[in-house]
Amino acid sequence: MTRLLERLTRMAERARNASRVLSELSSAQKSEILNEVATAMELAEKKILLANAKDLKTARQMKLSEAAIDRLTLNSSRVQAMAKSVRDVARLQDPVGRVTSEWKRPNGLQISKVTVPLGLILIIYESRPNVTSECASLCFKSGNSVLLRGGREALHSNQAISDVYTSVLKKKGLPVEAVTFVSILDRHAIDLFLKMDKLINLAIPRGGEALIRRVVKNARIPVVKHDKGICHVYVDQKADIGKAIRISVNAKCQRTGVCNAMETLLVHQKIASQFLIPLGRALSEKGCEVRGDQTVRKFISGAKKATEEDWKTEYLDNILSIKVVENLEEAVKHIQTYGSSHTDAIVTEDGKAANQFVAQVDSSSVMVNASTRFSDGNEYGFGAEIGISTDKIHARGPMGLDGLVSYKYVVRGDGQIRA
Amino acid sequence: MTRLLERLTRMAERARNASRVLSELSSAQKSEILNEVATAMELAEKKILLANAKDLKTARQMKLSEAAIDRLTLNSSRVQAMAKSVRDVARLQDPVGRVTSEWKRPNGLQISKVTVPLGLILIIYESRPNVTSECASLCFKSGNSVLLRGGREALHSNQAISDVYTSVLKKKGLPVEAVTFVSILDRHAIDLFLKMDKLINLAIPRGGEALIRRVVKNARIPVVKHDKGICHVYVDQKADIGKAIRISVNAKCQRTGVCNAMETLLVHQKIASQFLIPLGRALSEKGCEVRGDQTVRKFISGAKKATEEDWKTEYLDNILSIKVVENLEEAVKHIQTYGSSHTDAIVTEDGKAANQFVAQVDSSSVMVNASTRFSDGNEYGFGAEIGISTDKIHARGPMGLDGLVSYKYVVRGDGQIRA
Repeated sequence: MTRLLERLTRMAERARNASRVLSELSSAQKSEILNEVATAMELAEKKILLANAKDLKTARQMKLSEAAIDRLTLNSSRVQAMAKSVRDVARLQDPVGRVTSEWKRPNGLQISKVTVPLGLILIIYESRPNVTSECASLCFKSGNSVLLRGGREALHSNQAISDVYTSVLKKKGLPVEAVTFVSILDRHAIDLFLKMDKLINLAIPRGGEALIRRVVKNARIPVVKHDKGICHVYVDQKADIGKAIRISVNAKCQRTGVCNAMETLLVHQKIASQFLIPLGRALSEKGCEVRGDQTVRKFISGAKKATEEDWKTEYLDNILSIKVVENLEEAVKHIQTYGSSHTDAIVTEDGKAANQFVAQVDSSSVMVNASTRFSDGNEYGFGAEIGISTDKIHARGPMGLDGLVSYKYVVRGDGQIRA
Repeated sequence: MTRLLERLTRMAERARNASRVLSELSSAQKSEILNEVATAMELAEKKILLANAKDLKTARQMKLSEAAIDRLTLNSSRVQAMAKSVRDVARLQDPVGRVTSEWKRPNGLQISKVTVPLGLILIIYESRPNVTSECASLCFKSGNSVLLRGGREALHSNQAISDVYTSVLKKKGLPVEAVTFVSILDRHAIDLFLKMDKLINLAIPRGGEALIRRVVKNARIPVVKHDKGICHVYVDQKADIGKAIRISVNAKCQRTGVCNAMETLLVHQKIASQFLIPLGRALSEKGCEVRGDQTVRKFISGAKKATEEDWKTEYLDNILSIKVVENLEEAVKHIQTYGSSHTDAIVTEDGKAANQFVAQVDSSSVMVNASTRFSDGNEYGFGAEIGISTDKIHARGPMGLDGLVSYKYVVRGDGQIRA
């Protein structure tokens, strides 16, 4: 344990020192390096796919689920997509060095608030190996060093992808520790990193509930969580039925295993029969299982009985719970009670109802007449995202480059002293 | 323990529910209520001073230091100042409901980023009873409920001050739990609150190192720390000697027990004799003890020898450590090694040196030719401050109303679904 702690401390110290070098790179230098990483990524395709084949072989031996194997799998087009994404990040505006406000005090002091990198960021993630490249490129662009702690199942793929970054850093004479892939699989490593509040500025866990809980329990460093999404769509009495069906089906079925998919549909009683009958048909065509209250089961044949447990569940599957509510107030109350403050939507043509919903639902994204599936950095135009924060502190909702910086106050005077 | 946990959970739940009501108050309503609080505070002066007398009596029996008794003491003018400060907060711009950015996506989605309250904030503080009113007014203005956990020594004073708030809330038909003073003195109470990540959105500890450490160790909720300040002034070779002396004496001696006072002075070797001899005289007039390296002791008679420990120490006292450095790089390195990233200043007439210092010193406030003592919410024009954050996450440096809000994305569509 002590030797492991020493190794990890040294690793974090080097990465932290590297961040000082990154923080002084110009925007042009950072873009140039990222473009070189993209090219190197394309050239390393064969190496990356070989490494991935090793991971896949182990995954099959370990009998991982088909969905897990799909997430783990890389192929030529996925590697090309990774390279393209790095080029996209290269083109984004530099989040560092922006003067976000500036003012002069009566005593002549000139104060400006300037964005600066956070320093060293620890990312703890599971599954998809392309997260390695996404996070490395975003952290680099924002002038931060990164400790990448991926899942055991993607070890070789992650290592090969991070090698692309370090090879370019080395060629450029920059400290390779700016992108540090943590290949130590010992589970204690995470807990030890999480105590290093003098070295690591932020931990971002991306993964299942058990991971998040473990991180929150053990961390002495700040954490921005990327936790679950129990997302709701509320179909108001003044909803356009066509829109309501399209949005409900899209929010539930377009992709089910993601945090911004709808889990519970709330329906105003006055529109229940009109809406639920055609909705039931549309969901059934998509193979979606419905669990509902008594009224729902009256209008949707084959619907199972929903229990209290259903309202609390993130299915991440082609299952939908539906509840008929008396009014907007009951819908809001349900969301406040069971929601996870991730993304919730109202479908209505009534502007007043929409405004009330927007004001009262405290979620990172509140949608009016749009699918919850839009809650995403790319869809919001951020170019790339490090995840979707379910915290209210620092960064909330889809989290892009802006979430990876802090600021400092620069105060310029002419000899002022305090009276 | 279980009964205590139940009591505290109920307390937090009620405060959290009250925050929903606060979040819907208009700016005018909030200002009106704060103005009434100010008037009620003036009317309650006698009651507050009586409560304070009780605390002072106990404090003297417990033989608290004179400095501690001074911090604890209220008198008529301090109560009037509290009332005035509440009126100042009432006049500040509402930090909630501001649209900080707004854009349209190619698919027609209209996205806006709107500031919202955090919800429920736990403030853990020591000493001065006027912190109770400062924090209550700032949290209320920003639409947040607050749990106020003050020090045992100020119990009656804090209770009397928070009573002023709850009496006005009650009169206005608002939930009194929006301002909850925690009179339970059991030390476990803090640890239990710190685990309530479903109810409390942010903890702000203000106090000594032991308190901060305890909070960081036990918290499962986000924490913004108001930790120590080991602040430096670096006197460059191109410094104006007059400014350098004025700034150094002010930064050290104007008020010694505060986090933005200078603890270590760094002096460029080329200016050492010219600067240190008159500085020594000026400091001696202020009764300041000097601890320095060999060169310093040559120029300042009576200076003691500085040890490694001195560079790490926040004296909070009329003591200054001084080191002569070879150049700006060594000064920056010293600050990176021993500083606390709070506030550091350079004195120089050389614009290039100033820029290099500003770029390389990663502190919440970096000053050029100004005293570190200006690092303060009032001095920056924020009207009031909840403290000075030593974290880089969420809020950094002097933290006013802007640090007490989060944001949500409001997405308005016309039936858009994701392809």
